[in-house]
Amino acid sequence: MNYKNFPMVPRVIFGRGSFNQLNEIIAPKRLSMDAPFIYLVDDVFKSNSWLTSRILLSYDDRIIYISTEEEPKTTQVDNLVEDIILSTKERPSGIIGIGGGSMLDLAKAVSIMLTNEGETKSYQGWDLVKNPGLYHVGIPTLSGTGAEVSRTTVLTGPEKKLGINSDYTPFDQVLLDPELTRSVPKEQWFYTGMDCFIHSVESLQGTYLNAFSKSYGEMAFDLCQEVFLNDTDMSKEEAEDKLMMASWHGGMSIVYSQVGIAHAMSYGLSYVLGIKHGIGNCIVFDQLEEFYPKGVALFKAMKKKQGIQLPKGVCTDLNEEQMDAMIDMALRLEPLWENALGKNWRRKISSKQLKQLYLKM
Amino acid sequence: MNYKNFPMVPRVIFGRGSFNQLNEIIAPKRLSMDAPFIYLVDDVFKSNSWLTSRILLSYDDRIIYISTEEEPKTTQVDNLVEDIILSTKERPSGIIGIGGGSMLDLAKAVSIMLTNEGETKSYQGWDLVKNPGLYHVGIPTLSGTGAEVSRTTVLTGPEKKLGINSDYTPFDQVLLDPELTRSVPKEQWFYTGMDCFIHSVESLQGTYLNAFSKSYGEMAFDLCQEVFLNDTDMSKEEAEDKLMMASWHGGMSIVYSQVGIAHAMSYGLSYVLGIKHGIGNCIVFDQLEEFYPKGVALFKAMKKKQGIQLPKGVCTDLNEEQMDAMIDMALRLEPLWENALGKNWRRKISSKQLKQLYLKM
Repeated sequence: MNYKNFPMVPRVIFGRGSFNQLNEIIAPKRLSMDAPFIYLVDDVFKSNSWLTSRILLSYDDRIIYISTEEEPKTTQVDNLVEDIILSTKERPSGIIGIGGGSMLDLAKAVSIMLTNEGETKSYQGWDLVKNPGLYHVGIPTLSGTGAEVSRTTVLTGPEKKLGINSDYTPFDQVLLDPELTRSVPKEQWFYTGMDCFIHSVESLQGTYLNAFSKSYGEMAFDLCQEVFLNDTDMSKEEAEDKLMMASWHGGMSIVYSQVGIAHAMSYGLSYVLGIKHGIGNCIVFDQLEEFYPKGVALFKAMKKKQGIQLPKGVCTDLNEEQMDAMIDMALRLEPLWENALGKNWRRKISSKQLKQLYLKM
Repeated sequence: MNYKNFPMVPRVIFGRGSFNQLNEIIAPKRLSMDAPFIYLVDDVFKSNSWLTSRILLSYDDRIIYISTEEEPKTTQVDNLVEDIILSTKERPSGIIGIGGGSMLDLAKAVSIMLTNEGETKSYQGWDLVKNPGLYHVGIPTLSGTGAEVSRTTVLTGPEKKLGINSDYTPFDQVLLDPELTRSVPKEQWFYTGMDCFIHSVESLQGTYLNAFSKSYGEMAFDLCQEVFLNDTDMSKEEAEDKLMMASWHGGMSIVYSQVGIAHAMSYGLSYVLGIKHGIGNCIVFDQLEEFYPKGVALFKAMKKKQGIQLPKGVCTDLNEEQMDAMIDMALRLEPLWENALGKNWRRKISSKQLKQLYLKM
């Protein structure tokens, strides 16, 4: 047995209002006046001065606002990298991602592609990155994705949706300020929170599970239930704090194991229909009772408790070619299936079954 | 409010038998043929070829076996550093600590003192270290201390028992192989496991607690109970795995908060009587019902369940001067008292109370 020597985020600051310390934290990392810090910020914050006024821009530092209407793409990373190279005098001092999972993944990918040659799509896969990325900082404003701790950055390329999984992917610094999640719309809060809940279920029920992943997975599993199912009067602040920690632990849990069927099938939905990851996971997981009975029952209870309605019939209008592409995309994620169903997973699941499941969504 | 930007161990490998991967993990860190790896190994492993035969010594690499009869001392670090400097052609490539908390703390301290001038005692305190230490690896063979994740290395100096707390203290690499704990004697297993349990109680009941520490503390708290109180038939292997993770999480919990009264008073016992940390914590905690009612009740239940007898009357033969030194040592650890009792802790505890507590031990 060969175990993974897992890279962890080497610096983390946690606390409500810790965002105020960002400038002070990154200042020592400035390489020169001509080497700016580049902030990639979700454009929902564009006119939110409560957040943006606290970003201190010096010299050539700049904020690039990015829409997260769509999931991040390899070509988007290529364009951002080209834009940054053309517009800066020197290689930047660092990349700071502020937003949800898409923004964190973009920040990770841009930091890698500023020090590695060629096109982003050529690094989708496992351990293909050759050089360490630029100093990069992750600041989640949404809780649940686990992107703040993971060694992947999930991107949609021309041929596949797949992460750049590497030891150079994790952030050098993470800032966890639960206050930054205070104005997330309810649906988004639920879908992204469920990403974390599903991480914990897929990890805890996976064949890759060990004591390391289990302890983190259980913590995320418990915290999600406290936040989404609790009847007692938990304050909004406490719920924000807990969900941010749940996301962290859920992410830690999967680094030493793997996600499972919901993620594999959700990648298919995303690849063919452009359905975003959080809601895609929910749409899929809602139909996975036979694989994750306890987890799906809890999910349905949380959905009911929070009054969330999922879209229906998302796959009904697909033509055969699209359906096949979706199934192919899902089945391509072999480690996820192996984690969920064991080494002989191919005997336990068929394209036909996947099609039936997709048609129920 | 200013939050701590906490350094985490940047690399961790977990798994039964992962010790077999040590040589492969450190190989890329070798600086030259003349820059050896120095292994600091608890001398209980001296004739244990199951462990030592797996350490591959190349060039000038060597193992230094160290007795842990006594807690680590600042002068011991000074001597080790001098010995290493005199006996190596170049500054070592790395220091690898293999053992319990004492050995891990020695490895951390030696790595720091090989790159920082002067005497070790001058670095006891908070953030006094100027230069990063040498590459250092921690491999616990006992679970509970949390030394594998902490940013401190606790040493007894001529004037005080106090840690070198710094951002350069944490290990660069930790290897968690629960199999290495398989031959720990029962008492030692219990005392060191309780160190972790007490970390979790002191953190969870402390005034410094936040959602970060709480989630880690709860995980350690639960895992300790599973290991030490569980009636079901948990295998030895499962218990080893769980306790190793409990230690990790308990350590993570206190980095963002602080320990409390048991640790403060145990430092006193250790400083004056040379009582080792694990058993010292147990002796103290057993008497702290008024401060930690639920935690102490659980501790007593675990002690009973495991058939552990604590020594009695350890302080009865102390003269007044020794008792005063012990109380002074304990009260000197101000952050621990503040965490336990709040900002006005001085009004809530007196030397007289401490004396009464010590006399009950």
